[in-house]
Amino acid sequence: MNMKEEWIKYIESLQNRICAAVEECDSKAKFVEDQWQRTEGGGGKTRVISDGNVFEKGGVNTSVVFGNVSEAMKSQLKIEGNKWFACGLSLVLHPRNPFVPTVHCNYRLFELYNEKDEVIDRWFGGGTDLTPYYLFEEDAKHFHQTYKNVCDEFDPSFYPTFKKNCDDYFVNTHRNNERRGIGGIFYDYLKPDEKHDADFLISFSKACGDAFIPAYIPIVKKRKNCSFTAAQKYWQEIRRGRYVEFNLIHDRGTLFGLKTNGRTESILMSLPPTVRFEYNYQPENGSEEEKLLEVCLNPQEWTDQNK
Amino acid sequence: MNMKEEWIKYIESLQNRICAAVEECDSKAKFVEDQWQRTEGGGGKTRVISDGNVFEKGGVNTSVVFGNVSEAMKSQLKIEGNKWFACGLSLVLHPRNPFVPTVHCNYRLFELYNEKDEVIDRWFGGGTDLTPYYLFEEDAKHFHQTYKNVCDEFDPSFYPTFKKNCDDYFVNTHRNNERRGIGGIFYDYLKPDEKHDADFLISFSKACGDAFIPAYIPIVKKRKNCSFTAAQKYWQEIRRGRYVEFNLIHDRGTLFGLKTNGRTESILMSLPPTVRFEYNYQPENGSEEEKLLEVCLNPQEWTDQNK
Repeated sequence: MNMKEEWIKYIESLQNRICAAVEECDSKAKFVEDQWQRTEGGGGKTRVISDGNVFEKGGVNTSVVFGNVSEAMKSQLKIEGNKWFACGLSLVLHPRNPFVPTVHCNYRLFELYNEKDEVIDRWFGGGTDLTPYYLFEEDAKHFHQTYKNVCDEFDPSFYPTFKKNCDDYFVNTHRNNERRGIGGIFYDYLKPDEKHDADFLISFSKACGDAFIPAYIPIVKKRKNCSFTAAQKYWQEIRRGRYVEFNLIHDRGTLFGLKTNGRTESILMSLPPTVRFEYNYQPENGSEEEKLLEVCLNPQEWTDQNK
Repeated sequence: MNMKEEWIKYIESLQNRICAAVEECDSKAKFVEDQWQRTEGGGGKTRVISDGNVFEKGGVNTSVVFGNVSEAMKSQLKIEGNKWFACGLSLVLHPRNPFVPTVHCNYRLFELYNEKDEVIDRWFGGGTDLTPYYLFEEDAKHFHQTYKNVCDEFDPSFYPTFKKNCDDYFVNTHRNNERRGIGGIFYDYLKPDEKHDADFLISFSKACGDAFIPAYIPIVKKRKNCSFTAAQKYWQEIRRGRYVEFNLIHDRGTLFGLKTNGRTESILMSLPPTVRFEYNYQPENGSEEEKLLEVCLNPQEWTDQNK
């Protein structure tokens, strides 16, 4: 089995495992699957969940797509080669309860081939990031520590680098550099080099993908039955507005997909179910809402640096 | 009084007249004004209304801004000159009742000066467009006919050109070229030429600005007391999602403002108060909702072409 086949098999298994864990946690809603084909080559499985006990809206999507390297890809993406291949999983879950954080993750492999169909370039990309509406430090620590543990097993430089990438990427620059949430890890163009061969990198990406369930589901289970007020739901919907702003104004993946004839409904499954936009909304001084905002404006270290 | 001063005076008067007409129509909510200054020169008056009987959220903003022509303006906007000046009014009103359409308008003057502070270039831009949630043909006709009448007084080529500009501009290209609404008029870079001098163009722009109240307010008065169901409100919130998508993904003014350190809260006052995003939402065959979608996908002629 070559690397491409190994990765496809892994991604499909991960989709199944995550969907099962999410359904078990929700105990009401089930994923509905739409299979789609891409005219230019390949397709995907979009699985959406809505109106659950726990999850108000979400999607766990996979795609396996390929094609010829176009002139646009050569000029815009600085890509060389004859054919390309990409396979990944992308998920966003929007819980109903404002004490349960929204989560996003994406893990993907990209390959380029020459005219003999030999691999001439290959890289992994991925990451998982958390968007809470209220800050529970123990949840933030658990989430980050889970990914730090995975990273540290592979290379001690990974977590600090990928944690910073994440803080630097999910930024609403038009909102005083407010982050979308409390981050996580994010990496791209992770290519084999002298230190790490392709087998090392696929093992690392699989370990990150596998960490999603233990990183996120325990937080959901701990918070999903907390009671909340209408005012707390209101704040969640205001913050969801910031999520929309980031995804539609800044997110490279979203904009690239929408502008290159990607499947709109699969891409925009990331948007929250109900959202509020209010002029100049400011949380009260000293409130729990302001405490969340503070850590979005000033990213924190959530793990023990010496462990 | 030079043209710049004449236009500033006009825009401030228009802001006052529109705010008074909107408040009178709402009979509950009042505009709240935030005056802001721009470090680089000038400032604005943001006036927002919220939680009214008729208007759930809206803003009627003016700004008078100026500065030195920067290297970024020279390269990105292809602008030549020493100093620049811009003044305009920008308005968005989101009604509570789904039978009352959302409306947007913007009227502006831009001037460029040489080192002796002489005007070396000058253009007008503007337009008004309507975003209904349910189609009432008589309202669409009234709205378009009002602007056609104004345009025809100045130049019979204006309405057909500016109506098409509007249909071509407010497009969600990622949604099968669905328009944001049923259009109106839109023009930009309207510069003095052999046929139309600057006095003609300022008179035209003022006439368009003046037409806002008679074009829109009668529609509001006719529909504001219609009773509506939760399902109709739901549809309004789904369509408001498309409004958000257009403004954040495609609208040049919004993106330019957000990426050049404009005042975020004034720019994003355009976003609707409550919004829904649902995966693959499709109106029922033959429904009133589908009828609206049809005219967004296929722009119509709403005026009598022979009048």
